[in-house]
Amino acid sequence: MREIYFDNSATTSVCKEACDKMYDMMINNYGNASSLHIKGMLAENELTSARKIIADMLSVDKDEIYFCSGGTEANNLAIFGTADVKKRLGKKIVTTAFEHSSVMECMAQLEKKGFEVTYIKPDDKGNLSPEKIINAIDKDTILVSMMLVNNEVGSIVPIDVASKVIAHKKLQAYMHCDAVQAFGKMPVKPKKLGVDLLTISSHKVHGPKGVGALFIRKGVRVSPIIFGGEQQGKVRPGTENTSAIAGFGEAVKQIPSDFHQSHMNMLHKVCMDMLTKTDGIVINSPCNAVKNIINFSVPGIRSETMLHHLSLNGIYVSSGSACAKGKASYVLEAMGLKREISDSAIRLSFSELNTVEEIEIFYDVLVQGIQTLARAK
Amino acid sequence: MREIYFDNSATTSVCKEACDKMYDMMINNYGNASSLHIKGMLAENELTSARKIIADMLSVDKDEIYFCSGGTEANNLAIFGTADVKKRLGKKIVTTAFEHSSVMECMAQLEKKGFEVTYIKPDDKGNLSPEKIINAIDKDTILVSMMLVNNEVGSIVPIDVASKVIAHKKLQAYMHCDAVQAFGKMPVKPKKLGVDLLTISSHKVHGPKGVGALFIRKGVRVSPIIFGGEQQGKVRPGTENTSAIAGFGEAVKQIPSDFHQSHMNMLHKVCMDMLTKTDGIVINSPCNAVKNIINFSVPGIRSETMLHHLSLNGIYVSSGSACAKGKASYVLEAMGLKREISDSAIRLSFSELNTVEEIEIFYDVLVQGIQTLARAK
Repeated sequence: MREIYFDNSATTSVCKEACDKMYDMMINNYGNASSLHIKGMLAENELTSARKIIADMLSVDKDEIYFCSGGTEANNLAIFGTADVKKRLGKKIVTTAFEHSSVMECMAQLEKKGFEVTYIKPDDKGNLSPEKIINAIDKDTILVSMMLVNNEVGSIVPIDVASKVIAHKKLQAYMHCDAVQAFGKMPVKPKKLGVDLLTISSHKVHGPKGVGALFIRKGVRVSPIIFGGEQQGKVRPGTENTSAIAGFGEAVKQIPSDFHQSHMNMLHKVCMDMLTKTDGIVINSPCNAVKNIINFSVPGIRSETMLHHLSLNGIYVSSGSACAKGKASYVLEAMGLKREISDSAIRLSFSELNTVEEIEIFYDVLVQGIQTLARAK
Repeated sequence: MREIYFDNSATTSVCKEACDKMYDMMINNYGNASSLHIKGMLAENELTSARKIIADMLSVDKDEIYFCSGGTEANNLAIFGTADVKKRLGKKIVTTAFEHSSVMECMAQLEKKGFEVTYIKPDDKGNLSPEKIINAIDKDTILVSMMLVNNEVGSIVPIDVASKVIAHKKLQAYMHCDAVQAFGKMPVKPKKLGVDLLTISSHKVHGPKGVGALFIRKGVRVSPIIFGGEQQGKVRPGTENTSAIAGFGEAVKQIPSDFHQSHMNMLHKVCMDMLTKTDGIVINSPCNAVKNIINFSVPGIRSETMLHHLSLNGIYVSSGSACAKGKASYVLEAMGLKREISDSAIRLSFSELNTVEEIEIFYDVLVQGIQTLARAK
């Protein structure tokens, strides 16, 4: 069956370059990067190359890149690691009300331990007010954690507002950014953004699953959350996942400097033109959203019903974050959207592999769904 | 150059079956296992199959298997997870003095937090006395963590002594076993061993790096160490590393029911016959060690010197744990071996891919090294 994959914010196919690299690593260059013999050194070389590719993409030093098992672990390391290091200096943390679950759940844990977390709410368009951000951060704040791009609606969060407050007022807070949905879609430069810690993930950019990285600015110290051997300066021990890391590097190499922006703009425009001209469709993504994510609702048709209809036709979209496994979206709830809107939300997320033709086919199947499923109510 | 890889306890080459499976998963079956559409379900099916293969190998239920990023993380989850759940019931933990660094470092962290850890020392043959184990465990003990096979010398640890004490005295302690070096080399049956928690790793059994599993017996509760989405009952959230997990499953499928025991016995016998007949070589592994690990010393020739000599000849061995990155072996130190023995230790670790011919070549190069390197002193 023909497949149309519009769920690239959940995960992506792995590019051939990464797969080939990994295959070769696993069969031939399989040494333990910490082994002292030549086979260990050859594996370590690949680790260093991948680290350099990723560091270059972020315009940071390769020694500021710490590999871990994915975005979830990197977010945990940034947040718990900071809270542990700074716990005697303050208990206040600032974040948003629509972070990824791997940030939200860390915050919930820290609240149980006596930290005081401020969740800045987005407006009903998915935008965060700079004033709210400025007012939330003060001298007792030890950590600000904000995503750069929201995973469900695609909002671009003005995280520079937060980092500027911290810099201008010379505050002690570390600034962390979950850039999982931004990396590979727009320039992500931690030093320009003024962040101390930044999370990226491989499987959102056509790299393998099971690997991500945390940028830790030189001079910034976070406590580890996993303890063991001497790897990665003990910040993240454990045998380095060399083949996946090398695959991650290959995938990052394939990201062009213009981030496929003209192609994405076209896909976005074609799709938005179709959706906005259609009765009964409400767009949930803000105007300033990234071009690769479009969140919309068909009030009256539940997300899972439409998702199932599309899936049966070989079209794969999502109702929200895959990590929520079908639970109600707290992101749309935080935006204050009505229940009938959040219950019928559909997220399309494109990659550069998608085509205008796929959008046209999707649209036909969607319209057919709106007609038949609404009737079936 | 011809390569002889005798460092299989550090890591192994990935079997073709696992590589092919992973390649196909990454190119075709790349969905997010938590996605609700067909592509998510297909990925989830692979996850379930791999879980079943691994559970069957351990003779446990598939719902008792939790995947994580490797042995290090699994050990951290078992130890910190138990300490958190049981912290109000007691502060005593029992372990051995020659566990893997991912256990040792967790213990050091818990000591800082007020837990009282007893480290049972092995004798100079690398054996643990059952009496010492029995005496160390009491009603205030909340956790016993013992490896099944030591990674540096290959000792088989009588962990059943500990689990029997806990069972017979109806003690509250959870029993954890780091079975990373045992899995795939001998029958590892958590329920027969009487353990509540058991760690295994993929990359020691010709599976990919970056994936391991923790067996958590039904009814046993451990607190997570990583927080996020709904995956794996929130015990270990984060996008499931489906391709690596499927590769792990394929690798486990290749382990025969006799664990290549006759082949290993032959390699071990040939190698031991050669080493023991040679002047100036001291065997450090105990008699009861697993057949795939031989630790020996050439007093007077430092480990790194011999390792380098062998490496230049395409023969890859280790001086101890790869995770120690060349630091002095605390395992040999715990055994009370003299400095000249521990400074000159070499670990050979075989896989079923190794041959008698390779051992013969290794032996010739070793002897040549003993002659030339000793002279060069």
